[in-house]
Amino acid sequence: MSRLALSDTDKQARDWFADTTKSLGCKVIVDAMGNQFAIREGLKEGPPTVAGSHLDTQPTGGRYDGILGVTAGIEMLRTLHNNSITTTFPVGVVNWTNEEGARFPISMVSSGVWAGSIPLSHAHDLKEVGTGSATMKSELERIGYLGDKDCSFEAVPLAAHFELHIEQGPILEAENRKVGIVQGVQAYKWFTVSVRGADCHTGTTSFSHRADALLVASKMIVYSHRAAARKGALASTGILTLKPGSTNTVPGSVDFSLDIRSPDNHIVSEVEADCKTAFAKIAAGEDVEGLNTDFVASSKSCSVDWKLDTDSPATKFHPECISCVEDAAKSIFGGETQALTKPMTSGAGHDSVYTSKRCPTTMIFVPSRDGVSHNPVEFTKPEDCAMGAQVLMQAVLRYDRK
Amino acid sequence: MSRLALSDTDKQARDWFADTTKSLGCKVIVDAMGNQFAIREGLKEGPPTVAGSHLDTQPTGGRYDGILGVTAGIEMLRTLHNNSITTTFPVGVVNWTNEEGARFPISMVSSGVWAGSIPLSHAHDLKEVGTGSATMKSELERIGYLGDKDCSFEAVPLAAHFELHIEQGPILEAENRKVGIVQGVQAYKWFTVSVRGADCHTGTTSFSHRADALLVASKMIVYSHRAAARKGALASTGILTLKPGSTNTVPGSVDFSLDIRSPDNHIVSEVEADCKTAFAKIAAGEDVEGLNTDFVASSKSCSVDWKLDTDSPATKFHPECISCVEDAAKSIFGGETQALTKPMTSGAGHDSVYTSKRCPTTMIFVPSRDGVSHNPVEFTKPEDCAMGAQVLMQAVLRYDRK
Ligand SMILES: NC(=O)NCCC(=O)O
Ligand SMILES: NC(=O)NCCC(=O)O
Repeated sequence: MSRLALSDTDKQARDWFADTTKSLGCKVIVDAMGNQFAIREGLKEGPPTVAGSHLDTQPTGGRYDGILGVTAGIEMLRTLHNNSITTTFPVGVVNWTNEEGARFPISMVSSGVWAGSIPLSHAHDLKEVGTGSATMKSELERIGYLGDKDCSFEAVPLAAHFELHIEQGPILEAENRKVGIVQGVQAYKWFTVSVRGADCHTGTTSFSHRADALLVASKMIVYSHRAAARKGALASTGILTLKPGSTNTVPGSVDFSLDIRSPDNHIVSEVEADCKTAFAKIAAGEDVEGLNTDFVASSKSCSVDWKLDTDSPATKFHPECISCVEDAAKSIFGGETQALTKPMTSGAGHDSVYTSKRCPTTMIFVPSRDGVSHNPVEFTKPEDCAMGAQVLMQAVLRYDRK
Repeated sequence: MSRLALSDTDKQARDWFADTTKSLGCKVIVDAMGNQFAIREGLKEGPPTVAGSHLDTQPTGGRYDGILGVTAGIEMLRTLHNNSITTTFPVGVVNWTNEEGARFPISMVSSGVWAGSIPLSHAHDLKEVGTGSATMKSELERIGYLGDKDCSFEAVPLAAHFELHIEQGPILEAENRKVGIVQGVQAYKWFTVSVRGADCHTGTTSFSHRADALLVASKMIVYSHRAAARKGALASTGILTLKPGSTNTVPGSVDFSLDIRSPDNHIVSEVEADCKTAFAKIAAGEDVEGLNTDFVASSKSCSVDWKLDTDSPATKFHPECISCVEDAAKSIFGGETQALTKPMTSGAGHDSVYTSKRCPTTMIFVPSRDGVSHNPVEFTKPEDCAMGAQVLMQAVLRYDRK
């Protein structure tokens, strides 16, 4: 699945979302970030309790990440509609824009704007990654999804936000469990690290005359994994671009992404600080854990710069929402609840991180085969998806009745 | 300077070359690789003695690499023309296509076809690097330089080939010398190394569940420098592309270029063999010189594949051509010849590598400031360029009279 945010295929999915939820009796609001809120009236007026997630994917993503949460929400609307059930307050489904951060490089950017954590203008001006020049605003306009509603928790308040999502990790499957009751989300920071040296000829320039930005970046990438592993954290580089890009020219310029994660904010900061110190040494040609003693004494140094792209501190979800999910699970699994469910911390960020700042929020996980996600082979069994959808609907209805 | 082979600006330079040499009394032949041969009649018929080099550049190249050899050749034609000098046999200037290998990834590809070392169809089908789909043939057609002459040493024979070029290294400048008398060219091989792992989510996938193609490639790049440095050879990576390219997806796929050089063919082969063994271990997660003991025991391996793109064995130039250059230098520098010239081996490949297979060949080097090349700050003093042009013309005329 490749449905990058605000692409032509994303527009198709959005149109489908709007048509389908309208046919199920909903009113659909689109805000200035293109977030779609499908809302079904209740007995009383008030903010809706919603099931929310996203329809965008990674460039080579799967068919479940985000999508399951939205389609299960629509399934809930269909069940209410077909059975003519009236909830106490409105309920609804939300499709958040560019959750992945894959095309526009801030993840969960549109729930972030809704929560007041990211300025609208900053989000609108975000450029797509790569060589293109499109911005979020230009693409929202192009596909007709620059809504006239303010993007904010004040303009579109929510009573509570429940998100069904695939685990994207191996734990539930390994332990033979069906449902993760998510307590919170680990912290993460995303950086762009820029290394600058000098372009030179690969055939005529001795190692000691080089300032090789790619060799330096390679050492930094190796180091970041060591630094994270020592603290039980994660470090990852998913993007690396270099210039000028010719077999016989040593690259003078490299930019790479660095994603550092841990359930503990302090550990993320420690790994960041460790990398900052070590990267400066590596760029200066000083030795760091044997990485710079490679018989290549470079007399020229590179420079290194860090830019913080995303800072998502550890999140704790709302006890009332969590207990609605627990109760829903108990009513479904009965005596097996303990064996088939598990309290968990999410490794990935989700729109629920931002909604939790402005309304009670929690998440429900279902198993991912081999723990694989952000990959076309991502898979969750149909019966596990159905079980997750069941828990989602019951949790929403329980919250609505509270 | 950015004049990639067969781009619109390359067409402009080619048109200028043709107009200028025609105005100096030459006939211009264009062959099936777009090589331009400007030939000036002599007293007798026979193959011409030529000054040859190239007008294409790196993506961020300088104003001397290749260009000096062609413009100095034209200066020679102008001197002969203005002074109404008739040579014994024809003399001329050659502009070889895509010497850099920057846009179409085989360097010196068109002198290679001329020499019979590279099949025409292989060269024609070469795709431009990056995401474009143009081939050499489609671009030759597009800019009107797919000539009707066969590209071969039989269709366009040369009596001898002299190439004036900037050193692209630091030696002449450091030793305060004016002219390098080039004895040969070091060996080099270019490879594309492909590493395949699996895309996965950076937030939910523990190190032990990853097959991270970029981490593995980074270790390989670090290792290749160690392996080369131990043997006094060079190793360089100038191109690296990865997929899918998203901050929160571990890359499952990386391709990078590897350029290995040494004056000794055997040493290039030894470094290649060393890297092949080590890369296989690195990809399999086995330890290699501490690079894989980074507290990151990956239980999943990557695969690694090698493709040979260019194989340019060490070249020895022709004694008769070398002695023409020596004599030219003596007539210019007199008693200072020993102090101001130096016998050298070229670190970079040049079209003279291929012409030397089919006709007597040598090269003349002039100093490069700070040894810098393949970089916009590339610089050679005007008086050094003039001195090189002087030696070039005299060497050509001496060879013609032999
Ligand atoms: N679930 C998910 O892939 N979210 C994107 C943000 C992150 O990388 O954690
Ligand atoms: N002189 C030059 O840059 N030639 C290209 C082939 C090489 O990289 O040696």
